[in-house]
Amino acid sequence: MMQFSSALLEASVNEFSRLPGIGKKTALRLVLHLLKQDVGEVSQFSETIARMRREIKFCKRCANVADGDLCSICSNEFRIQKIICVVETIRDVIAIESTQQFNGTYHVLGGVISPLDGIGPDQLNLESLLHRVEKEETQELIFALNPTIQGDTTIYYIQKKLQGKDVKITTIARGIAFGGELEYADELTLGRSLQNRQPVEKYVNR
Amino acid sequence: MMQFSSALLEASVNEFSRLPGIGKKTALRLVLHLLKQDVGEVSQFSETIARMRREIKFCKRCANVADGDLCSICSNEFRIQKIICVVETIRDVIAIESTQQFNGTYHVLGGVISPLDGIGPDQLNLESLLHRVEKEETQELIFALNPTIQGDTTIYYIQKKLQGKDVKITTIARGIAFGGELEYADELTLGRSLQNRQPVEKYVNR
Repeated sequence: MMQFSSALLEASVNEFSRLPGIGKKTALRLVLHLLKQDVGEVSQFSETIARMRREIKFCKRCANVADGDLCSICSNEFRIQKIICVVETIRDVIAIESTQQFNGTYHVLGGVISPLDGIGPDQLNLESLLHRVEKEETQELIFALNPTIQGDTTIYYIQKKLQGKDVKITTIARGIAFGGELEYADELTLGRSLQNRQPVEKYVNR
Repeated sequence: MMQFSSALLEASVNEFSRLPGIGKKTALRLVLHLLKQDVGEVSQFSETIARMRREIKFCKRCANVADGDLCSICSNEFRIQKIICVVETIRDVIAIESTQQFNGTYHVLGGVISPLDGIGPDQLNLESLLHRVEKEETQELIFALNPTIQGDTTIYYIQKKLQGKDVKITTIARGIAFGGELEYADELTLGRSLQNRQPVEKYVNR
């Protein structure tokens, strides 16, 4: 067990090591780094984190993180509000935003339907999505869920609920990743990738 | 570049990613984890860190981290105060304390003599060590510095300064680590390890 000669140091190491993926040794390295910084810098670090947790909001419309009632995407008039990309987590929003290839809006489900984990439709932001599609006359719903059975179940469930509504439902393409090697791809991915083959012109024109 | 839809989130990710070894993706993972914790827990995290930096002291005697004027080792009457283990950093104190094999005190140099990096004796807690040895009638000085040319230079320098004084000077043993394989040991370590070979009885009795 790590022995400290300062209770203040020990408490800080313990706090850091409660973060996911941070062991005691890494925590100690981080704390000793902070110890070398100016008091002002460390208090800025600490205040920024506390303030984020205290003041951050979740968008009333899409459940993404927000600084106000609506997130910066929902309140941006240059985004196509009638196209909704449905994702599991906030992290997925950031990943897709970082591609700079999408100009619609999002809806963060907060997970996928997974009866084994006790997650049913009621535990997710599903009702709000259905309500939104209805009220906003959404034109397209793009599912960008992880390719799992639970993800597929969720898509199926939502699709059923929207039957008869005039909304296009798509999912992002599955296939071999750029730079990925065929022989290492799993069979399902490779199989789907073959089924969903595209004309070469389309590929080249990308 | 990572795109955020909340300035509060972005600021927190930036703060975390300024820590050594923490990239943007790891920072995001940590921040999203904190976002899921209670406000109280996050404010405890942030206050513990800020308080540590604001209130932590350095031991007036050995330069180790301390909660008061003296560290908990220097103020512990059960520790042998006349034996001093000389180390480079606070981290080394924690590493040795964690072995629970040492019952003396420490002296944290804050580095080693390294002219190329502009670190001379004056940049280190060296004067205070010499003063301490004189005043406290230290019996033994154990050097636990890293096995580098700079470490050896520092030992040599201090030894010179203490010439004629009645203090035993030793260094921790160098050798093949437990579990280490001979063929991967560097030549210097293996050579020293041969020179400093020990009687088998001593080894077995450990």
